[in-house]
Amino acid sequence: MTDSFDAVDVIVAKRNKQELSDGQIDWVIDAYTRGLVAEEQMSSLAMAILLNGMNRREISRWTAAMISSGDRMKFSSLSRPTSDKHSTGGVGDKITLPLAPLVAACGVAVPQLSGRGLGHTGGTLDKLESIPGWRAALSTAEMMRQLEDVGAVICAAGDRLAPADKKLYALRDVTGTVEAIPLIASSIMSKKIAEGTGSLVLDVKVGSGAFMKDVESARELARTMVDLGTDAGVNTVALLTNMQTPLGLTAGNALEVRESVEVLAGGGPPDVVELTLVLAREMLAAAGRGDVDPADALKDGRAMDVWRRMITAQGGDPSATLPVARETHQILAPGSGVLTQLDALKVGMAAWRLGAGRARKEDKVQAGAGIEMHAKPGAVLRAGDPLMTLHTDTPERFDRAIAALDGAYFIAPEDSRPDLLPLVIDRIS
Amino acid sequence: MTDSFDAVDVIVAKRNKQELSDGQIDWVIDAYTRGLVAEEQMSSLAMAILLNGMNRREISRWTAAMISSGDRMKFSSLSRPTSDKHSTGGVGDKITLPLAPLVAACGVAVPQLSGRGLGHTGGTLDKLESIPGWRAALSTAEMMRQLEDVGAVICAAGDRLAPADKKLYALRDVTGTVEAIPLIASSIMSKKIAEGTGSLVLDVKVGSGAFMKDVESARELARTMVDLGTDAGVNTVALLTNMQTPLGLTAGNALEVRESVEVLAGGGPPDVVELTLVLAREMLAAAGRGDVDPADALKDGRAMDVWRRMITAQGGDPSATLPVARETHQILAPGSGVLTQLDALKVGMAAWRLGAGRARKEDKVQAGAGIEMHAKPGAVLRAGDPLMTLHTDTPERFDRAIAALDGAYFIAPEDSRPDLLPLVIDRIS
Repeated sequence: MTDSFDAVDVIVAKRNKQELSDGQIDWVIDAYTRGLVAEEQMSSLAMAILLNGMNRREISRWTAAMISSGDRMKFSSLSRPTSDKHSTGGVGDKITLPLAPLVAACGVAVPQLSGRGLGHTGGTLDKLESIPGWRAALSTAEMMRQLEDVGAVICAAGDRLAPADKKLYALRDVTGTVEAIPLIASSIMSKKIAEGTGSLVLDVKVGSGAFMKDVESARELARTMVDLGTDAGVNTVALLTNMQTPLGLTAGNALEVRESVEVLAGGGPPDVVELTLVLAREMLAAAGRGDVDPADALKDGRAMDVWRRMITAQGGDPSATLPVARETHQILAPGSGVLTQLDALKVGMAAWRLGAGRARKEDKVQAGAGIEMHAKPGAVLRAGDPLMTLHTDTPERFDRAIAALDGAYFIAPEDSRPDLLPLVIDRIS
Repeated sequence: MTDSFDAVDVIVAKRNKQELSDGQIDWVIDAYTRGLVAEEQMSSLAMAILLNGMNRREISRWTAAMISSGDRMKFSSLSRPTSDKHSTGGVGDKITLPLAPLVAACGVAVPQLSGRGLGHTGGTLDKLESIPGWRAALSTAEMMRQLEDVGAVICAAGDRLAPADKKLYALRDVTGTVEAIPLIASSIMSKKIAEGTGSLVLDVKVGSGAFMKDVESARELARTMVDLGTDAGVNTVALLTNMQTPLGLTAGNALEVRESVEVLAGGGPPDVVELTLVLAREMLAAAGRGDVDPADALKDGRAMDVWRRMITAQGGDPSATLPVARETHQILAPGSGVLTQLDALKVGMAAWRLGAGRARKEDKVQAGAGIEMHAKPGAVLRAGDPLMTLHTDTPERFDRAIAALDGAYFIAPEDSRPDLLPLVIDRIS
């Protein structure tokens, strides 16, 4: 770092709608990581970026600077190509669990560095931690060995992976600057590029339960991330998928593991199976193995086999009984007709309130808490049919969860049809 | 404070171009003053305000909340009306020095709480501190007594006057959020309203040496401040005045005191005399004494008499010899013709570099440092005529001051006429 800049000059430039130079971006990220640019300075810069934007070159450089703030992993020594998937997060989105072993079973290695959940969407690590013995923290050597031996690893990102992003994300969270597409895209992509995957499939969720509520902003985020991946030499594809209603029939940690195992056993809810296969095909194609059909590996048990080896390799017992919540409460259909709506955000909020998610980073989650759905939009119900079962260890939470579900579902006359978005809305490459 | 809000919600509202409610504004200023809203949160909010604005109600409430963060002074016990003047700051702007005693000599009390200089514009307290013995810090009781006895006081604002503004100003300075009209206006007006003056005249400077470089933005700032004063029940008028070229013939602390005393003695540069009289008439009219002509009090020595008593009351010796810089350097006219330009910003920067101003709050200023101008735009010069004399105690500073003056003046053929703005550009009431 030879050049030096002034933090106020960089802030004022973006505030005045100017492009930041490569030198300014490199300097500000490095100086922020080292504590030379103060939190309050990065926060006004983040707000200026949120309101005035960054162009493709600026976002690409910003991402590269965040990657350079830490270590970059390399998988070139592996005997097979690598592919990774990232979801922007949704309610009931357990797809990583069946997907990673499935793709590995088809000959492509999956290095999946995941996070924990905050707010109404669950985190992949929280889900897997409901399996007795399973641990998220692996050394780089352990991760490489498991990738070579098993082909799939789902673990926590180390502290040295884009530390600038870690610091900036915590700041954005408390300063109203989360919802900036350049900052969201660079945050996701800096970690994925630093992780060293050869190809990447992005699952950008759209709808009430997703971060992006409408197709237009989801498409802009997807396009920005695909550009960033491409600029960094990572073969990147994005799908826009439906998060108006929860994925599958469960939202909650152990509940979602159970559903994932059903999918690996050849069963499971049709939407989870479909999205798993669609994403698996994209990952295989992106890694140059578009000739392999993942449906076969699901059918013949190879994916389940990798799953069991993957869980075992990280200390988990794939045959152990999963935790079950102490108390349940059933919600019944108040009338007869067609279920035309089941809102993802409200179900997610309710699952969170039951103990499945955390409000603050330091909170613990309940492994057994969450929601089982007995019907999805399109289902014909009779009054008194079970609609959902709420699970929690702490029954005093039922009231707040039931309140969160107010207006979450709608039962229309029997000749109605729900107006549903397709599961896969668009593909951007 | 009964209601409680969330800092992120307030930031997000302004970020999304929504109006902040009275409750949100009261809460955020109070919580920030008490350290419950973090610096990085106020900084992203300040950037959102800078880029998305605030309407009249919001600015008025924001100002009221800053006033409520501290004490409010009251002059209702005084036997005469009060009036104050505030200048947004310019090069060679010593008007407060002759103006306060002049207005007091006409029967209106002037409670002038002033600040120190930062950057290229000088501070009134720095100027007066070049008078041996004079002290800026007065207790409220001392201030009230002097207002009653002498009629004019120029002193430092106490810590309890709008402490929220003090904290916010320091933050804005390092986060690129100074140049927001709602924040500039509320910062100035919160202090002036809390100070308790009955009427107020604002001198909004326009031009290279001023904070506002163009008439349009100066007019917007003036309008915003007049509205704030009016909303708070303070009779407020604003003048837009020329700061393209320095005021008078001096820029520097003791140099400006000397020039001010010349004006009080019935001499002094015509522009300083004119602006002093224009502002005095506005202050007298705003305080209900529009019938008095301040020119008389200047001519017959009454203003000088108040000046001497005002300086003496604060420990100063009005007859003492003022400090003189150790070294001088003369700049001569490089050719013959008409001086068509003498740039306020460049002269201000040069005076600052000579030691008249400070770069950081904790710096000391040199009492004798600064610039004497021997010609103003419109003057006819011959090559070799003295143009300016630079003064400093530290002659190693001459080179940087001379560099700052590069392009500061322009001498055109003798039939040219400088294209000058009038001294008073507009009046807003």
